[in-house]
Order: sequence, then structure tokens, then C-alpha cells
Amino acid sequence: MKMNKGVEWAVHACTLLAPLGQGRGLSLSALADYHGVPVPYMAKQMQLLSKAGIVSTSRGQTGGYTLAKAPAEISLWDIKQAVDGATPAFRCTEIRQQGPCAVPRKDCKAPCAIAAAFARAETAYRDLLCSISLVDLMADVSGHASAQHLADIVGWYQDNVTVLPAKSG
Amino acid sequence: MKMNKGVEWAVHACTLLAPLGQGRGLSLSALADYHGVPVPYMAKQMQLLSKAGIVSTSRGQTGGYTLAKAPAEISLWDIKQAVDGATPAFRCTEIRQQGPCAVPRKDCKAPCAIAAAFARAETAYRDLLCSISLVDLMADVSGHASAQHLADIVGWYQDNVTVLPAKSG
Repeated sequence: MKMNKGVEWAVHACTLLAPLGQGRGLSLSALADYHGVPVPYMAKQMQLLSKAGIVSTSRGQTGGYTLAKAPAEISLWDIKQAVDGATPAFRCTEIRQQGPCAVPRKDCKAPCAIAAAFARAETAYRDLLCSISLVDLMADVSGHASAQHLADIVGWYQDNVTVLPAKSG
Repeated sequence: MKMNKGVEWAVHACTLLAPLGQGRGLSLSALADYHGVPVPYMAKQMQLLSKAGIVSTSRGQTGGYTLAKAPAEISLWDIKQAVDGATPAFRCTEIRQQGPCAVPRKDCKAPCAIAAAFARAETAYRDLLCSISLVDLMADVSGHASAQHLADIVGWYQDNVTVLPAKSG
């Protein structure tokens, strides 16, 4: 079982955007530069986040990405789902309907016990990721950061945060 | 996120072996036939289960697979792990150590908050699968099966279960 690697970059990018508040953002190149990752790959994750309504983007010289919702309303599950999809990891192919003792289709209205068990585990996984918002992550990151690291970030924000143009229409 | 498809077949195979008790088993071809799946693919899952100590195998005319442990001691996690591996789905590449505000390696003894959050979710997933044994699955399957289906299975067992040769040495 392997998650799309883009999830890690997407969560880092959202965590970096989280303290800015709406109306302020970061350009794609700044986001890529901060994380030391190639622009095209960062672009791909930001497009997926945008499509899922997690970030919004404005174009032009002062354009950039900003969170489309309050950080408390964006969970790790939202980001995981945006980049990696929400298809269950365990996919039931209805093996019980095959072979010499096949269960007739009409008796298969309830999910197979095996599929149901994996679904319960995936629900536990999802519930935990739903319970962690970007606010929790921000607190965790800044609570563990050294004074020097926090100073570095503040300096970087000063050089890179852009005020986004007011939305028209 | 996608689980190895073999997990589904492996769990079905173990659930079919579970009621037999030690000393009785099923040949590879019987296991494949029951599930309506190709022998080579079933063989691959059984080899992985054998390597993980979940089933044991005996060779020869009356050879076959049997559970290597009591059904109560085999969890869905054991089977998932045997076939799909136990590598975490979220793999941290230490993005925090990259870019202009890189956290120095010496300050990265604790896991990144983002990796830690995903690890908590994977622990919840694993704990749930660990809590479900083959005994639970057997009860679930037979509790929902029709009388006809149970009769079919009993008949099929009568035709296919082999008494395995006693282990030498």
C-alpha cells in the first residue's frame, strides 16, 4: 500500500500557507523554492488542491496560491483525498460469487464480511485524518521549531508573501 | 492508495482453511478452484502466507496447505502484512530538511509533525485489522450464509479436504 508521494508536498504547502490568512498568498515558484522541490511537480499538487477547493489561485504579477478555507476547516483527510483520491485501498472483487460454492448474486446485498472488515479499518484511518486540521499541524510544527528556524521562516515570509488582488465578480 | 489485490484472495483462502483444524488441509488446486482463480496466482499468495508462518504446507500426493496457527491467532493484519507488506503508505522524505529554511538534521530527531500525523492514522488502521481474527470472519461468513450455501460448502469440504501426513522430525 503506497500513498501518492505528492500528498507529503501538498500537506507541507498547505501548512506553509495556513498562517497567512485569506488575501495573502505565495507564488508557485516560492512554494516550490521553500520546499526545495521542482516547480512542475509542486504545480501538479497545487492544481489538485485547487480542484478540490482547498486552495484558490489568482493570476498575474502578484498572483499566487492562498487557502480557500480557514485552516481549521481543512483536514489531513481533505488533502490526502485531493491528491491521492478516496478510492478504498481494499477493493472487493466479489470472490464469493465465484467457484463451485458461489453465493448467488441475490444473496450478496450486504458487503462480503472480508470487505466489510477492511472498510472498518479504512474508516478508522479516515476518521483519524479527519480529526487533524491544519491548525493542529501549525501548532505542532511551531511548538517543536527552534527560535532560529522560526526566525528563518518569518524572514522568508517577509520576502515572499504577496498580497493577492481582490477577486472580481 | 491501493492494496495488493492478492490480499483479498489470501484472506478468502485462510477463511476457507480456518474451520479445518490442524492436520487437515486443502491442495493448491482445490483452493484455486473453490475461489475460481488461476492456480499460479493462488500459489503466489499461498507462498507469501507460508513465508509469513500463517500457513504450512506438506508435499506429496496428499499434500496441501493448512493453517500454521489457531484461527484466533491469525488476524487480518497478519494476512495483509504477509501479502501487501508492512511499509507505511505515507513515506516521509524529510522535506523539512530541504530549501532555504531547512531544519538542521540535528533538530530532526523527532519525526516531522506531518509524518507523525499520518503514522497515527496508520496505527488506527493496523489496530483495527489486528483486532479481527479468522474466528471473527468465520462467524461473520457463516452467520450470513444461507442454509443452501452452508450445505454446498460442507459437500465441497467432504470432496476436497485431505488429511495431511504427520510431520517428520
